[in-house]
Amino acid sequence: MKIGFIGLGIMGSAMATNLLKAGFNVTVWNRSIDKCSPLIGLGATLAASPRSLAESADVTIAMMATPAAVQSVRDGDEGIVAGLSAGKGYLDMSTVDADTSMKSAMLAHEKGALFLEAPVAGSRKPAEDATLTIMAAGDRELYDSSLPVLEKMGKKIMFLGETGNAARMKLANNLVMCGMLTALSEGIALAAGSGLDSSQLLEVLDSGAVANPMFRMKGPQIAANRDFPTAFPLKHMQKDLRLALQLAEEVGQPLFATATINELYKAALAQGLGEQDFAAVSRVIMK
Amino acid sequence: MKIGFIGLGIMGSAMATNLLKAGFNVTVWNRSIDKCSPLIGLGATLAASPRSLAESADVTIAMMATPAAVQSVRDGDEGIVAGLSAGKGYLDMSTVDADTSMKSAMLAHEKGALFLEAPVAGSRKPAEDATLTIMAAGDRELYDSSLPVLEKMGKKIMFLGETGNAARMKLANNLVMCGMLTALSEGIALAAGSGLDSSQLLEVLDSGAVANPMFRMKGPQIAANRDFPTAFPLKHMQKDLRLALQLAEEVGQPLFATATINELYKAALAQGLGEQDFAAVSRVIMK
Amino acid sequence: MKIGFIGLGIMGSAMATNLLKAGFNVTVWNRSIDKCSPLIGLGATLAASPRSLAESADVTIAMMATPAAVQSVRDGDEGIVAGLSAGKGYLDMSTVDADTSMKSAMLAHEKGALFLEAPVAGSRKPAEDATLTIMAAGDRELYDSSLPVLEKMGKKIMFLGETGNAARMKLANNLVMCGMLTALSEGIALAAGSGLDSSQLLEVLDSGAVANPMFRMKGPQIAANRDFPTAFPLKHMQKDLRLALQLAEEVGQPLFATATINELYKAALAQGLGEQDFAAVSRVIMK
Amino acid sequence: MKIGFIGLGIMGSAMATNLLKAGFNVTVWNRSIDKCSPLIGLGATLAASPRSLAESADVTIAMMATPAAVQSVRDGDEGIVAGLSAGKGYLDMSTVDADTSMKSAMLAHEKGALFLEAPVAGSRKPAEDATLTIMAAGDRELYDSSLPVLEKMGKKIMFLGETGNAARMKLANNLVMCGMLTALSEGIALAAGSGLDSSQLLEVLDSGAVANPMFRMKGPQIAANRDFPTAFPLKHMQKDLRLALQLAEEVGQPLFATATINELYKAALAQGLGEQDFAAVSRVIMK
Repeated sequence: MKIGFIGLGIMGSAMATNLLKAGFNVTVWNRSIDKCSPLIGLGATLAASPRSLAESADVTIAMMATPAAVQSVRDGDEGIVAGLSAGKGYLDMSTVDADTSMKSAMLAHEKGALFLEAPVAGSRKPAEDATLTIMAAGDRELYDSSLPVLEKMGKKIMFLGETGNAARMKLANNLVMCGMLTALSEGIALAAGSGLDSSQLLEVLDSGAVANPMFRMKGPQIAANRDFPTAFPLKHMQKDLRLALQLAEEVGQPLFATATINELYKAALAQGLGEQDFAAVSRVIMK
Repeated sequence: MKIGFIGLGIMGSAMATNLLKAGFNVTVWNRSIDKCSPLIGLGATLAASPRSLAESADVTIAMMATPAAVQSVRDGDEGIVAGLSAGKGYLDMSTVDADTSMKSAMLAHEKGALFLEAPVAGSRKPAEDATLTIMAAGDRELYDSSLPVLEKMGKKIMFLGETGNAARMKLANNLVMCGMLTALSEGIALAAGSGLDSSQLLEVLDSGAVANPMFRMKGPQIAANRDFPTAFPLKHMQKDLRLALQLAEEVGQPLFATATINELYKAALAQGLGEQDFAAVSRVIMK
Repeated sequence: MKIGFIGLGIMGSAMATNLLKAGFNVTVWNRSIDKCSPLIGLGATLAASPRSLAESADVTIAMMATPAAVQSVRDGDEGIVAGLSAGKGYLDMSTVDADTSMKSAMLAHEKGALFLEAPVAGSRKPAEDATLTIMAAGDRELYDSSLPVLEKMGKKIMFLGETGNAARMKLANNLVMCGMLTALSEGIALAAGSGLDSSQLLEVLDSGAVANPMFRMKGPQIAANRDFPTAFPLKHMQKDLRLALQLAEEVGQPLFATATINELYKAALAQGLGEQDFAAVSRVIMK
Repeated sequence: MKIGFIGLGIMGSAMATNLLKAGFNVTVWNRSIDKCSPLIGLGATLAASPRSLAESADVTIAMMATPAAVQSVRDGDEGIVAGLSAGKGYLDMSTVDADTSMKSAMLAHEKGALFLEAPVAGSRKPAEDATLTIMAAGDRELYDSSLPVLEKMGKKIMFLGETGNAARMKLANNLVMCGMLTALSEGIALAAGSGLDSSQLLEVLDSGAVANPMFRMKGPQIAANRDFPTAFPLKHMQKDLRLALQLAEEVGQPLFATATINELYKAALAQGLGEQDFAAVSRVIMK
């Protein structure tokens, strides 16, 4: 199977590297061509454009940072869709909204090709270790034929049904993450406000049934009210909360806590915290 | 060391059982005497009243459900305090507000006794397995001498400083737990409501940075909207949320998310779910 | 001046009736033709389509329930815009989002016509009594020429500037109304729940600085938890809350109380109360 | 009838002044004696203590800001109760919780005196104009005999039944007021944030079914985000919200909107706005 891989950022480079190491025939393309060199060194072929990459590949994989970046490699005369034809597969592993995915699916189908959205959970380390969680949705036939490829990039791979479901699952996942961080921040605010040592609260939490890596990772910085590295920007998380609430309204599901948590995230945005890590919501919570 | 144990509910029974199994000499008392029988079967002695229990014990442990229950066994002619004297220890493991603890400490001190508040994190299973987290605060001398006893009931034991601090820490801990369960329930509600398989959401959460034992334990039943065993009754958790909000008001700390989550717990209480596990808040969230 | 009137629901029928009574030449159209009969009985002419209505009228007024309904009568071969031409006016009195209004303005301008959005505050009774508040925005020239028409439907008529402003003002107005009714409902719930006579609460409110006609009108039925006539359907009010929150997100304004109130309205929708008056939010508040 | 009046804050001073102007024989006492001077200038007598005031008066009226303040003038050797005896009346017009009122009633009854709680709705202006709403509850006999006095302070006077009911009614009333002001503030914030003229929003509101004197009075200053005279201090209003939520918890009534509104008031307190008018909650709402 010939694979095309577009989007060689931190995540995409690691994922494409794993495919090459597994012996797959991989063609690559990236807007900044210098990102392609290490992969060519590992045996990858360079394509002239997303279109020619898609023309030469059985399955074209894209791993872009935003819906706008997805569109920039997907659309136009030299885009992926222009290179698709009957029997080929288009596999978008970017995290985008359900509407963008459904548009991609429609465009692929118009060319007789198959489509799969397959956003991932996990960042640089799991990408390098091929231990990502991959949430796939769309054409089952493409999922089945791509599974040997996906298994070289992730350790947990799930098929979620029709196109859009993976985007929706990502929203539910992010809603829970924001809720947990908000709860942690309010707990720390209460502890600190009432004269307790908030690092002891973190110890208590970590010794019980709620112990989790995210609290261990972000808790100490929240407690210290210090800046910390941006794993996922707050402004993107607030967008996901908005999309989650919008989806909830469409399906008639009240979400009282999430609605309030979204307002806290909006307040953080209004205070200029949008580029910081999404844990910076703690800044509007701690007085 | 002779131990007295008062309050043989779900938690207290399991904790007293562990003390008996560890070979301690334990005298018990409970308002409903039938709860005492299994412990007497394991070698415990029955006391006639909290007072006589305290008179015969070196350390009197109480594990009550509410501040009112603490007062009912502590005060009066036949209460614990009436049986305290110089050198004895009064160790209250109930989750109560700081004011109640400080009153208990004052009453113990008036009799020349020592006081320690030592509420626990963890519910039925950790109580049975002696893996509770125990947050102790008050008289350091009693903490040091009681440590061998506490170590038979919990695996993480912390000293938090002055009386009241453990009560406050417990509230912060429970606030975070309720927030996490509410976030999980809203995530599941959104997933289920938008046609996703909510057990797949649990898989996604469990494969990432937010994976935690509580979600693994309670998630499947929330997703199935089924009854499940009561580890910690919802009505007691709501009481803790109320106390947490009260403490937050005293120290001038707004807690927007927790205030909303408390209303969800109140709505669950109003629907008659008070005796169920505190995860039953999901019943008012899922439409 | 020849007037066309499209959209003969509760509000539109009353407003068109007032125009007929004032002696205007009115042509009408409605999706369900039976709603036209009473107006034809009062002298209105029936149009074959929105297009032919717009062709025959100097000013075409639309009073639709949703943005989708606005589009359905505006667009397409038989839509209002197809019948517009230079010099004609298109006056949309529906409550829609600013984007819909700006699209309508653009379409009208492309045909050389003028556009005015003019949503109203007030429901059935003020519509019947011609005492609506009319918030107009868009082409000032059309506002000036339409004023004699608007004055037969409303008693307070304001010009708010550029297209979109009236839509936004309507949302702010409805946000306040929903907040007031929710506050009233929670006050009544607290009074009733604690054994007070909730009609005495209404008396107290009506004797002070917060006395207002809406409380006098809707309060007794909320207190009695009885059905009452639908002045403005709850489902439309929830839509306005959603649009208000959407606008607030766009401009970076947190609205904690409104976000929670929207969830109460969503809960009412989920309980099947969408067709009832928007005061029926009280049904989900009173336990 | 000889009247004693204790508590000469903004409200109490205005009310006592009206009693003096109506020709009543009034003795006064206040913790800070300088507040007594204007009333002495109008003919009031100064008492040496709450006790001696109560000994000399037929009816002792108290108008304190908090339950703690009520206790401080009620209890102890020099307190009101110490001066009560058979046939005298104790009329507490402070806004306090039902428990405090019931304690006051019990203490009065133990001395053979009658008790009436009679909190008011309305702030500085209605107090000055004698147009307060007075909600009385307790001993009907004292209500009947005090009516001529109450009528010189309020224009609407209601008897609500057993002691505690007036306290509860006041909380329900204040809950509605806070909800209305919060809704108004969020509406103004949305209007201003999206480029509208917020004074036009006030016009719209004032032209419809929600028109009310409080919006007319406080709306322009909220819209201007300016300081304004303190009619009722925010910190006291937040206390009432807290008591309302506490009462709601006792009777099992969820109040989602009020819980969120209380957090906004707490945030205002945390920003040091406690001494400003309760409309200053707008300061934490408007970004």
